[in-house]
Amino acid sequence: MNAQPTRVAVLAHDLFPHRAKTATGVLRYADYDVAAVLDRSNPGTRASDHLSLPDGRDAPIVESMADALSEGEIDALVVGIAPIGGGFDESWRGDVERALEAGLDVISGLHYFLAEDDEFAALAEAHGATIHDVRKPHPDLTVSEGRASEVDADVVLTVGTDCSVGKMTVSLELTRAARERGIDAGFVPTGQTGIMIAGWGNPIDRVVSDFTAGAVEEMILEMGDTHDVLFVEGQGSIVHPAYSAVTCGILHGAMPDAIVLCHVAGREAIHGYESTAIPDPGTYVDLYEDLAGPVHPGEVVAGAVNTSSIDSDAAAREALDAFGSQVGGPATDPIRFDADELLDAVLDA
Amino acid sequence: MNAQPTRVAVLAHDLFPHRAKTATGVLRYADYDVAAVLDRSNPGTRASDHLSLPDGRDAPIVESMADALSEGEIDALVVGIAPIGGGFDESWRGDVERALEAGLDVISGLHYFLAEDDEFAALAEAHGATIHDVRKPHPDLTVSEGRASEVDADVVLTVGTDCSVGKMTVSLELTRAARERGIDAGFVPTGQTGIMIAGWGNPIDRVVSDFTAGAVEEMILEMGDTHDVLFVEGQGSIVHPAYSAVTCGILHGAMPDAIVLCHVAGREAIHGYESTAIPDPGTYVDLYEDLAGPVHPGEVVAGAVNTSSIDSDAAAREALDAFGSQVGGPATDPIRFDADELLDAVLDA
Repeated sequence: MNAQPTRVAVLAHDLFPHRAKTATGVLRYADYDVAAVLDRSNPGTRASDHLSLPDGRDAPIVESMADALSEGEIDALVVGIAPIGGGFDESWRGDVERALEAGLDVISGLHYFLAEDDEFAALAEAHGATIHDVRKPHPDLTVSEGRASEVDADVVLTVGTDCSVGKMTVSLELTRAARERGIDAGFVPTGQTGIMIAGWGNPIDRVVSDFTAGAVEEMILEMGDTHDVLFVEGQGSIVHPAYSAVTCGILHGAMPDAIVLCHVAGREAIHGYESTAIPDPGTYVDLYEDLAGPVHPGEVVAGAVNTSSIDSDAAAREALDAFGSQVGGPATDPIRFDADELLDAVLDA
Repeated sequence: MNAQPTRVAVLAHDLFPHRAKTATGVLRYADYDVAAVLDRSNPGTRASDHLSLPDGRDAPIVESMADALSEGEIDALVVGIAPIGGGFDESWRGDVERALEAGLDVISGLHYFLAEDDEFAALAEAHGATIHDVRKPHPDLTVSEGRASEVDADVVLTVGTDCSVGKMTVSLELTRAARERGIDAGFVPTGQTGIMIAGWGNPIDRVVSDFTAGAVEEMILEMGDTHDVLFVEGQGSIVHPAYSAVTCGILHGAMPDAIVLCHVAGREAIHGYESTAIPDPGTYVDLYEDLAGPVHPGEVVAGAVNTSSIDSDAAAREALDAFGSQVGGPATDPIRFDADELLDAVLDA
C-alpha cells in the first residue's frame, strides 16, 4: 500500500467502536475521508453517537457495502476490525465482493491475506481493483545497517509499559500537534492500523525476526531527510513475555533521540500475562535508556497516560503528576487534555 | 528436520575449515558420523589436517559427492557452508543431484530453500529422498504464553557481547561436560548449525518477529520435563544494531535461570558495525539481568571467552580472570581449557 485512498467505507460489523481499533483509528486520524462505517448492529446511527471524535470527523453507520455505495463517491473499503487470530469472517464476504465489483480497492490488515483468496483475486482482476494486505511485508526487507541516526530529522519513539497503552495514538497526537505549530512532522507507522492511517509502512510484527530493526530503519531512512521530526509508533513493551523482541528491534532500528513512555492508568500486570507484574515507571525509563544507549543514546523525556478509567480531571491530573515524577518529565493524557506538554518536552530534547 | 541421520557427507567446498562454521560444528558436535567432507580445494587430506578436532572425530576430504559415496554407507548430505546472503552456489548443484539420485536426504540451512528448487524436488520425489531446509520455520508457530519457567529442567542460556562469539559452542561444550558427569542435559538449538547438529529445532532468526519468544518457548516446553538441565543456544547480542530483537526474544522466551556471557578476546566493536563500541562486561551483565528480571529473574553466573588470538596460556588466563571479575563469576575458554568451571557455576546457580 503506497497510495492513499480519498474517501473510504470502513467495515466494522458488530465490534464497533470498542473492539474496532482500526476503524476508530481511521475515523480519528486518517488523512482521507470516511464516507460510511459498515456495522450491521447499528445502522441508522452515526459514529459520533458511539465514540467521541474530533470536530468534523464523523460518518453515518450503514448496514452493508451496498448501502455505503449510496453515500457518494468512494474509492476503497477498509477492513476496520480484526478478530482474535486475524482471520477473515466469512460473514463479511458479501461486502468485500460488492466493493470489488464496484471497482473499489480493499485495504486489510488481517493475517488472512485477501489478495491470496482466489475469489477476491479474480474479482479484483475483473474490475480493475487492487487489494492491499498491509500486514504482508514487502519482499526486499533486510537487516539493519545501524544508520537511522544519520537522518536530519529528530526521531521520537513512543514505548509502552504494555501492549495497547496508546503508543499509536500518542504518536499521532504528537504529529498533529507539531503540524499545528507549523513543524514539518512525519508519522512512521509500524502496525496495521498505523499503516492504514498513514497509507504506507512496514508491519514490523510480521517481518522475519532478523529484519525487525532493518524494517524500521528502512522507513526512517526513507522519511528522515524530508521532515524535521519523525514520530515513530512503538509496539509491545520491553518486558512483554511475547512481544519484547519487536519492541527491542524498533528501539534499535529507529535510534530515537527522545522517547515517550505510554501507560494506562490502573493497569498492574501485562494484559493476558497476569503473572508478569508491570514494574514502576522508573524501571522502564532505565530499561529503555540503558538498552538504547550502546546503539544510540535516547532519553525518556515524558510520559503519556490513558486516564479514561479515572472519573474526575483533578484525580487524573494527580495520577499524571505521580507518573511524571517517576519518569522525570511531564506526563499528560493527550486525549483527555492535549499534547502540548508532550510536544514541548520532545522538542526540547 | 525431526529425524537424525546416521552417517553423512558434508559439503564445504573452498571455505573449509575457517569459513565453514556449519561443517566444523557438525564435525565437532553432531551425534551422527561424518563419512567425508566435500572440499574440492583439499581432496586427499583429512579434516584434522586443517583444524583441531576431539579424539575420534575426523573425516577424509574428497572432491565430490561421487567420491564420498565410495566411503561406505551414507544416508544424508549436509550443506555445511553458507555464503554471505545464504544463497545457493550453482557450482554445488552436481553434488546435490548426485546425493538425491543415490536416495540420500539433503539437509540445508541456506536461506535458499532446496525443497523449492524444482529440479531438486523432482529428484527427491523420484528417489525417495527428503530435503530438510532447516531454516524454514514450521507453519504452526505462534506467540509465547510466558510459560517456559514451568518446566522441571533448569534452563541455562548463552548470551553474547556480539554475534559469532561462541554461544553455540559454549552451549554444546556445557551439554557435553554435563553428560560426562551423568547429568541428563539437553541442547536447545536456535540457529541453523545448532539445528543440524541436534537434528531438530526452530530457526529463531527466520520466524515471524511476533513469534520470536514463542518459537523458543515451544522448544523449552517440548524438552523441559524430560531433562534435568537445558542448554539454550543464544543468538546475536542485546546491543546489536540489527539482531537485538532476536536476542531479546530468546531471553524472554527461554526464561533462563542462569546465563553465561560469551565474548571474543580483543573484540572492541560490534562486527560489521564498527561505530558501535562493545561496552564493558559489567554493562552486559546489568542489561541482560535487568531485562530478564520483570519476566523471569535470571543471573549471569559466568563468562566464556574465545582466547584463540592470545598466544600463551598464561596471558589467556589473565584475560579470563579480568573478564570474570567484571562478570562477577568464573570465566574460562572451554575450547582452550575445559568447561568444568562454567558447568560448576551454572549448576550452582
